[in-house]
Amino acid sequence: MHTVADVASAQTRLLDFKRHGLRVGFVPTMGFLHEGHLSLMRLARARCDHLVASIYVNPLQFGPNEDLDQYPRDLERDTALCESVGVDTLFVPPDLYDGDHSTTVRVQELTDGLCGASRPGHFDGVTTVVARLFGIVQPDVAVFGEKDYQQLAVIRRMVRDLCLPIEIVGGPLVRDVDGLALSSRNKYLNASDRSRALTLFAALQAIANSGSPSVSERLAIARPIVQADSVDYLSIVHPSSLKPLETIDGPARALVAAHVGSTRLIDNIGL
Amino acid sequence: MHTVADVASAQTRLLDFKRHGLRVGFVPTMGFLHEGHLSLMRLARARCDHLVASIYVNPLQFGPNEDLDQYPRDLERDTALCESVGVDTLFVPPDLYDGDHSTTVRVQELTDGLCGASRPGHFDGVTTVVARLFGIVQPDVAVFGEKDYQQLAVIRRMVRDLCLPIEIVGGPLVRDVDGLALSSRNKYLNASDRSRALTLFAALQAIANSGSPSVSERLAIARPIVQADSVDYLSIVHPSSLKPLETIDGPARALVAAHVGSTRLIDNIGL
Repeated sequence: MHTVADVASAQTRLLDFKRHGLRVGFVPTMGFLHEGHLSLMRLARARCDHLVASIYVNPLQFGPNEDLDQYPRDLERDTALCESVGVDTLFVPPDLYDGDHSTTVRVQELTDGLCGASRPGHFDGVTTVVARLFGIVQPDVAVFGEKDYQQLAVIRRMVRDLCLPIEIVGGPLVRDVDGLALSSRNKYLNASDRSRALTLFAALQAIANSGSPSVSERLAIARPIVQADSVDYLSIVHPSSLKPLETIDGPARALVAAHVGSTRLIDNIGL
Repeated sequence: MHTVADVASAQTRLLDFKRHGLRVGFVPTMGFLHEGHLSLMRLARARCDHLVASIYVNPLQFGPNEDLDQYPRDLERDTALCESVGVDTLFVPPDLYDGDHSTTVRVQELTDGLCGASRPGHFDGVTTVVARLFGIVQPDVAVFGEKDYQQLAVIRRMVRDLCLPIEIVGGPLVRDVDGLALSSRNKYLNASDRSRALTLFAALQAIANSGSPSVSERLAIARPIVQADSVDYLSIVHPSSLKPLETIDGPARALVAAHVGSTRLIDNIGL
């Protein structure tokens, strides 16, 4: 595995692989890797000749009162994990933007609801950094986790709208043995937080197990199950437009975001 | 020359050329081609193996009271002209956006002044369509005219910020024998409009010929020369940041935009 920190060197190296006909796969991350990330890298590994992972905690996608400074980091451990799943190039830029960076990529509508409503500007930061990373890496295939379900839908839309010749693959959410969706932020949870955090998945399971076609009925069953300090949303939406549904008569996705202590957690399930 | 109207067919065709190692050049236009466009195509022709031109009148970059519906079109003549300068693939999409297109690429700051001030949203439309065209064509080199000087600076910034591996080349402005900067919109001018239109270049020449280091002095000399119905701006700016200068002690660009009759004209000159 080759580790590269410089933007221009990374791009030159990867364009050269592409020029030689190699299919480049890409998994962008913010580091502090867990089995969820590794599962995405394994998915990408099987779909490409040269696997690139990136670790960059992107300031643009954090709000002013969010956990940018506290976001957990462990580059040494991350490097070993990337190597263990067959990453060929690990891109770890200390900084990613020019001082006078002035371009924003914005996906409208899809970013209005769900996490977009409680995290203004978050998705603009995500699409802008992903567009820049795609520019550097020029991947043929990129894998994003279904854990960040709205993010995946937003990136699919961006790639479609900008006609980028990149296959976007969604990787299934990975859960801990107790059912908690893996997240770098789970590190913040103490034991009692963690048992409350588990109620998010319990609520989603209740939604999935209810046979009712009525969204309001399913949400009424699930809402009391969530034991959080505050709930940003508990919603059932169309899987690609992310528009709230009233009736379930086709594919649908249930999503939840809630604060447990000072930690904001998200989870989702296909219906 | 091969003409293609369909987005997916165009992308498949051009990616295939790239995969075979050909260097792809690109000149995007809104059609109604004149010698200015053809000079850009000749510049691109000399820098690539496979030359792509596009003709698309992009609704996103027209304001609600602008000339989208009247914008001149002549596809048959344009096709012959493209062939005459050695275009290999002519891309003429009847429509370029999906019905639920929702992605905008926006360059801040550089788009605040000059034409950005009088045409709100114009440059968002330009960067969005150019990003999408770049996605489809995946050019190695793209040529834009210095006639649209601010547009060229904005596209250079977008390409830098999104790390697109595309060389952006600026093509010199081409003038008619009387000095009028070539523009598809010159078609709108009657004889008396045209003689007034020539005063824009006369004013720019007066700025270039003045030896004064003072921007306000040079502008004071030039301003009375312009015979237009209204002047959007007459400015001297830094050539890449586009920030207004007070003193000329290095490279600078003088730019003018004015309405003559119902026609909005722009011109510029290097100092």
